[in-house]
Amino acid sequence: MNNSNGSFRCISFLSDFGSGDETVACCKGVLLQRGISLPLVDISHDVPPFDIISGGWMLAGAALYLPMGIHLAVVDPGVGTERSILILESKRGDLFVGPDNGLLLPAAKRLGGVEKAWKLRPEHFESCQVSPTFHARDVMAPVVADLAAGVLPSNLGEGISEKSLHVYPLAEPARDKERISGAVARIDTFGTVRTNIPWKWIDIGKEGGLRISRSWLFSISLGKTFSDVELGDLVILEDSWGYLSIAVNRGKAADVLGFKVGDPISVEYTM
Amino acid sequence: MNNSNGSFRCISFLSDFGSGDETVACCKGVLLQRGISLPLVDISHDVPPFDIISGGWMLAGAALYLPMGIHLAVVDPGVGTERSILILESKRGDLFVGPDNGLLLPAAKRLGGVEKAWKLRPEHFESCQVSPTFHARDVMAPVVADLAAGVLPSNLGEGISEKSLHVYPLAEPARDKERISGAVARIDTFGTVRTNIPWKWIDIGKEGGLRISRSWLFSISLGKTFSDVELGDLVILEDSWGYLSIAVNRGKAADVLGFKVGDPISVEYTM
Amino acid sequence: MNNSNGSFRCISFLSDFGSGDETVACCKGVLLQRGISLPLVDISHDVPPFDIISGGWMLAGAALYLPMGIHLAVVDPGVGTERSILILESKRGDLFVGPDNGLLLPAAKRLGGVEKAWKLRPEHFESCQVSPTFHARDVMAPVVADLAAGVLPSNLGEGISEKSLHVYPLAEPARDKERISGAVARIDTFGTVRTNIPWKWIDIGKEGGLRISRSWLFSISLGKTFSDVELGDLVILEDSWGYLSIAVNRGKAADVLGFKVGDPISVEYTM
Repeated sequence: MNNSNGSFRCISFLSDFGSGDETVACCKGVLLQRGISLPLVDISHDVPPFDIISGGWMLAGAALYLPMGIHLAVVDPGVGTERSILILESKRGDLFVGPDNGLLLPAAKRLGGVEKAWKLRPEHFESCQVSPTFHARDVMAPVVADLAAGVLPSNLGEGISEKSLHVYPLAEPARDKERISGAVARIDTFGTVRTNIPWKWIDIGKEGGLRISRSWLFSISLGKTFSDVELGDLVILEDSWGYLSIAVNRGKAADVLGFKVGDPISVEYTM
Repeated sequence: MNNSNGSFRCISFLSDFGSGDETVACCKGVLLQRGISLPLVDISHDVPPFDIISGGWMLAGAALYLPMGIHLAVVDPGVGTERSILILESKRGDLFVGPDNGLLLPAAKRLGGVEKAWKLRPEHFESCQVSPTFHARDVMAPVVADLAAGVLPSNLGEGISEKSLHVYPLAEPARDKERISGAVARIDTFGTVRTNIPWKWIDIGKEGGLRISRSWLFSISLGKTFSDVELGDLVILEDSWGYLSIAVNRGKAADVLGFKVGDPISVEYTM
Repeated sequence: MNNSNGSFRCISFLSDFGSGDETVACCKGVLLQRGISLPLVDISHDVPPFDIISGGWMLAGAALYLPMGIHLAVVDPGVGTERSILILESKRGDLFVGPDNGLLLPAAKRLGGVEKAWKLRPEHFESCQVSPTFHARDVMAPVVADLAAGVLPSNLGEGISEKSLHVYPLAEPARDKERISGAVARIDTFGTVRTNIPWKWIDIGKEGGLRISRSWLFSISLGKTFSDVELGDLVILEDSWGYLSIAVNRGKAADVLGFKVGDPISVEYTM
């Protein structure tokens, strides 16, 4: 019964559920109960709890490298409240299912932007079978299964304009002649600080290094890979997704710098 | 060669092996070597080490949401000793494979109860190929593969009565007019205290709140979802499986309350 | 398009990427984008960061229990530097893909040894699409996909002699009449010390116990399983792969002994 138009080649799943509970398996079981046979890829279930910024950035990091598919993403501090659940279609043709809190938007943007958006109709939440604390299992997974089976999003939700969606809770990066402003979008498990500043904005031909500032300023060398600097030294480099990142060779840059997700940072050239 | 009767639609796997070793992969490899093609669902491999209560409750939590299948569950402090390995058939038709220490029983109960039980014959343990410390890989995974291939449980084990099985090591909940007694069955990774007290036993129409007691008594508000109380406040709510749980909105109830798995608790109504 | 000769029955994946980032999913996505349909088995992604000894030993531990397949293994402190990326063929017929730092060799040895070796040609690293910090996604996963699709290793890399490979960074075990020397190859997540000393070298018929030494000497009982000794006591036993290990019944031997990966140890008989 699945994937009647044959266009989807995987179902991916990202959450902050952790791997220590049976919750992820419950959601997967619901997909299997409904006959899903598409390959299932776990993006990660270790998004820091309730951290929409990190979760959204991780989903975006995976999106370009997954085949066209249906992507279930659940970082949902508002579960059980009035927030909507969305189906977003990307320009590439993927479908995203998750809460309306900005989580899905960076990934949709990497895949060309939002083509269409729907919010689930209330009847999906009103069954006595729906636990108020587990919409991923009782609402979203069934919707993913329906979509995989070829049900049209417009049969599940009501079309809404992209402008009415809750935005991703991190300011867009900006630049002028002298400086670039952005923010910390993710601290990875190696402690590397990943920002939302596109690397192509950096003029790496310029003399000197870069100065990173939060409230203070400091200079860091540019490199191509971690080992371009000594063990324990800081290095600024393009991350594997095309954004500026700050790493320590075999160390944790976030700890050294005291940076956390959401921190605004700015970059200037040293003379 | 698999699943000759076509009735099983997944193999699930729960253990306390953690994800840091190659042990889970060894078991899966044994299944693949034997030609298993059913979807494999990891329930969790992060059951607290040797914690039969938590593992059994997690298996039960997943059971209803998985399609009919063969469920391998290994929390086995007695590995290498004389304890038996069981095959249990649930009323729904699932097969469970795991040690005879009570681990499998709450899940079988959720699926209607134990239809039949077998204990593996000793020859399964006697080969020089069987490591005394890794029965999951050398005994149980091959049994799962055999069952998936259509071998009858009665060809692998000896029928035994349900009464002779080791019980799940947590007292059944009970109630009288004034109070309900139960116990902590699981503390999830968010620190929420999940009890074995059915939520339907709670008369939520009654005036006032609930008093939870271990050695002392305290009152907690009832809610439907975490955010029904302020950040950091305790709330009693129905968990996603129909049991009473105690949570803190974005906090860890188990830490606040000092509760641990197995603790008896009782519930009374406040006037 | 996959697996044109039908000989591979799985793709396995081991890394030190952790499960907290989207990096593992990116690699899997690349495989799916290229049409891979073989079962994908995660060996572990929690190899201690940069720890080639542990990673190599874990890969070896899984190898014998996986069906013949293509094994991607990435513990790669030298990513982005001049180190080569290898394709190794085992005598059994498996293909291993990973960095040339010794990581792949213990596993190849368990499968009969290295039949042939190739190092990837430089053009694989020179595309502007290749991130210097993520060769697993941009170089190795595409190579795995090519191999699964039936591309010959000789079309991807240049044949090199086994002797020119970087060795596994742990001395081979040795023995004379009085003592056996080896090293700690892995400390598992239960704290058990796994050595590279073959258990069959131990004369378990001899009177007395064994003395383990690093800089000091101590005696430990021999057992078959953890519970052969009291809770908290040390026991020497054959691990599930046929090597000498030191465990504590429900405790962490590595902590008790202060052993870490790479430590040389020797074993003597007590009189």
